[in-house]
Amino acid sequence: MPPPRTPVPPESLGLARIEPRHVAALRAAAGDEAVLDDPERLEPYARDETEALRFPPDVVVRPASVEQVEAVLRLAHAERLPVVPRGGGTGLSGGALPVCGGIVLALERLDRIRVIDERDLVAEVEVGVTTAALQDAVEARGLFYPPDPSSRESCQLGGNLAEDAAGPRSLRYGTTRRWVLGVEAVLADGRRIRAGGRNRKDATGYALAQLLVGSEGTLAVLTAATLALIARPAATLTLVLPFGRLEDAAAAVERILSAGYDVAACELMEEAALAAVARVETLPPPLVGSAAMLLIELHGRDPEALLEDAAGVESVAHDAGSGDAMVADDAAGQQRLWRVRRKIGEAVKGISPYKEADTVVPRSRLAELVRAARRAAERQGLTAICYGHAGDGNLHVNLLRGELPDELWRARRDAAEEELFREVLSLGGRITGEHGVGWVQRRFLPLALGPAELELSLALKRAFDPRGILNPGKIFPDPGAEGSR
Amino acid sequence: MPPPRTPVPPESLGLARIEPRHVAALRAAAGDEAVLDDPERLEPYARDETEALRFPPDVVVRPASVEQVEAVLRLAHAERLPVVPRGGGTGLSGGALPVCGGIVLALERLDRIRVIDERDLVAEVEVGVTTAALQDAVEARGLFYPPDPSSRESCQLGGNLAEDAAGPRSLRYGTTRRWVLGVEAVLADGRRIRAGGRNRKDATGYALAQLLVGSEGTLAVLTAATLALIARPAATLTLVLPFGRLEDAAAAVERILSAGYDVAACELMEEAALAAVARVETLPPPLVGSAAMLLIELHGRDPEALLEDAAGVESVAHDAGSGDAMVADDAAGQQRLWRVRRKIGEAVKGISPYKEADTVVPRSRLAELVRAARRAAERQGLTAICYGHAGDGNLHVNLLRGELPDELWRARRDAAEEELFREVLSLGGRITGEHGVGWVQRRFLPLALGPAELELSLALKRAFDPRGILNPGKIFPDPGAEGSR
Repeated sequence: MPPPRTPVPPESLGLARIEPRHVAALRAAAGDEAVLDDPERLEPYARDETEALRFPPDVVVRPASVEQVEAVLRLAHAERLPVVPRGGGTGLSGGALPVCGGIVLALERLDRIRVIDERDLVAEVEVGVTTAALQDAVEARGLFYPPDPSSRESCQLGGNLAEDAAGPRSLRYGTTRRWVLGVEAVLADGRRIRAGGRNRKDATGYALAQLLVGSEGTLAVLTAATLALIARPAATLTLVLPFGRLEDAAAAVERILSAGYDVAACELMEEAALAAVARVETLPPPLVGSAAMLLIELHGRDPEALLEDAAGVESVAHDAGSGDAMVADDAAGQQRLWRVRRKIGEAVKGISPYKEADTVVPRSRLAELVRAARRAAERQGLTAICYGHAGDGNLHVNLLRGELPDELWRARRDAAEEELFREVLSLGGRITGEHGVGWVQRRFLPLALGPAELELSLALKRAFDPRGILNPGKIFPDPGAEGSR
Repeated sequence: MPPPRTPVPPESLGLARIEPRHVAALRAAAGDEAVLDDPERLEPYARDETEALRFPPDVVVRPASVEQVEAVLRLAHAERLPVVPRGGGTGLSGGALPVCGGIVLALERLDRIRVIDERDLVAEVEVGVTTAALQDAVEARGLFYPPDPSSRESCQLGGNLAEDAAGPRSLRYGTTRRWVLGVEAVLADGRRIRAGGRNRKDATGYALAQLLVGSEGTLAVLTAATLALIARPAATLTLVLPFGRLEDAAAAVERILSAGYDVAACELMEEAALAAVARVETLPPPLVGSAAMLLIELHGRDPEALLEDAAGVESVAHDAGSGDAMVADDAAGQQRLWRVRRKIGEAVKGISPYKEADTVVPRSRLAELVRAARRAAERQGLTAICYGHAGDGNLHVNLLRGELPDELWRARRDAAEEELFREVLSLGGRITGEHGVGWVQRRFLPLALGPAELELSLALKRAFDPRGILNPGKIFPDPGAEGSR
């Protein structure tokens, strides 16, 4: 195992290194059993799901209460120690990695669902609850929490809030931010705040809760959120549509939405993605040799009405060039249809190490996005595999390493990614749709934001965290690195 | 006419008074015809729709381009002049009134719809466009922009953004913020920024656009926004349900939503509101003598499916205690049913001057809210009339002046309002659902926000507007006035 690296020396950001007295003070603040500093026990906190990055912390603190979070932050603030909040560790932008060393504040023990209110249709949930546990708990009461990141079994609400996580269903239901009515958070100096509340509308002062969502652990440590719920859809239906041409699939997305179908999810897999899945899974015959497939999910109260909508969607797609649809309105059939889409991660992993780029463009530019990804990859001798949330214009582009040696791979990957994101921006897109900027995308931030937006963002960061202790080294590029790299 | 008052002397906030040289510089910056300083022409800019408040500006500038907005702000920033952005002047919290004097920056000439894109389903719209003009333009192309403040014919997008305006349909579709993909704005120092973009998902840096929405002109001057659109609902249907008991109407709201009906609007009028309308309009017989009515609107693709949903809603409401529903699925019939709800503003105005309190509570507390409003009013010998957006828990409480002399009215109104908002907060509610804090609600802000939230909000304000020139005197209470007035 390589030695620990801290690519950003804490001193370069005016921060201190952890000393034994700090560890002792953390034990006093959060209890002995909450503090880990044995290198072996630190190891799981050195990684997330982002490539092969590894940045071990100096110490991990696993507070069991919000009071302990406050105590840890009071200490860190006084001593200028880096604090990196961490949820399930499923992030894809390196957001939870301690690139300055310091304290990883693992919030997994704040795992209570405090309230599920069936009259107000809200839940108050601590950040260490996994998305799946939250969904299961509310669904058992006939309620529904829509955001569905694909890591839902292991990701935690805190990470969902930090990254404004989404998933297939955000087409109809929006991202995590839409469901947040209020948050509880601890500021960098250890003071607890509550922003927003439990109300469906709220024009009381600045939208602090909405700002904290998506701030990637750099503005405050979220400890709980009050979430809006809805009644669980009584009926769901899934369609899979094969296309002979990518452009037709992209056009079908536009036409279906323009026709007013309130589609819950609209997922795309292009040729290379279907081919990857075919290596681990027998494709349903209509998909074999297809240039693209769309998977569409519909939600509603009435199964009959959904079948009529499905027929309508199918007819619009057919006019746009699709082959015959496969349709399922029973749970087993729907799972079978989703299987192709769900297998893509595993399938790509089986081929080769890869880098995932989280691109998003206006919907009308989908086909151009896929072509740009192929071009950027090919120019570097790489393969691109594209799939994702077509209805939102949000595609994940996997760049495959193949057999390239380490140094060459890194150079080509970086070059391909830079070309891809420059294309994305010229298509009116952005450098991340749902994974966040974190560590790996920060070099592209100055391409996406103008100097005034960047300066304003830094001013916000200072207003919340004047000493810069919260998740240092994230989102913002290194000083002086603007636009270069 | 009383002499101009500036209740907050600009000097008290470190700001300067307008001098003739400033007016000359404004003429140079924005053109002669854009600058008004004749007292008679200033008069329309001294008021909005909030009670009888009147605060004339020293000068009005009506820029015709974003470049002119930049030039005005550069000057104001250099000279520390108060700048109050203004849209249609329909605000209900005094947000657009120049309480420090200074410059009213009237954005009514930025009135271009720059883009309506039928493929991406987005519009890029300047802030001076009225909400109705935007809606008509997109509806003519089969598209739909849902937020529907009741002032839609005269309010402007800029005001909608500043206040996060809503209206009946926000139950299904959310408030203005949900539809904003990106904004163009000019910072206090005259630099232009673009926050967000044209994408349905965007995790690129802090949510600046979402923060600017609802910031009431205190953080930046918005000049345009990119808005998400959807296909226009092909079918709409309206139901009116009479109730013999207020509590039953409130319970019906909960049960209908828990049953999973995706209701577009769910409006409540209680006894006193129905009685007020009865003075100007013949009520449909089922409403005569009712303790409350609910008006429900349904949207969908298929008229047949809507009729089935309506039957379902009616049956749930009937179980909760409603009388027979009146249902309309044709435009004329729907307008007739909406008429009772739409007449309430005019009806109350016809009775007496009044103060409107924009209360919001968790949905389960609706009946308690109405009772609290009645109690608070009665204790001061006033009458309360309650109506509004029951599905969102957002009720407008009109406190009627009756024949009270000025001073007594002000004292009693203030006392009733303070009791009401304390009750609202103890019910888990907030001090404004959709009108904003502005000038008239600022004394309640320290009741709704803790000291850390208030301090953080002020730090944000300083990060955006270090000299405090933008809409001074709004949102935040006077220093030292916390909790008292």
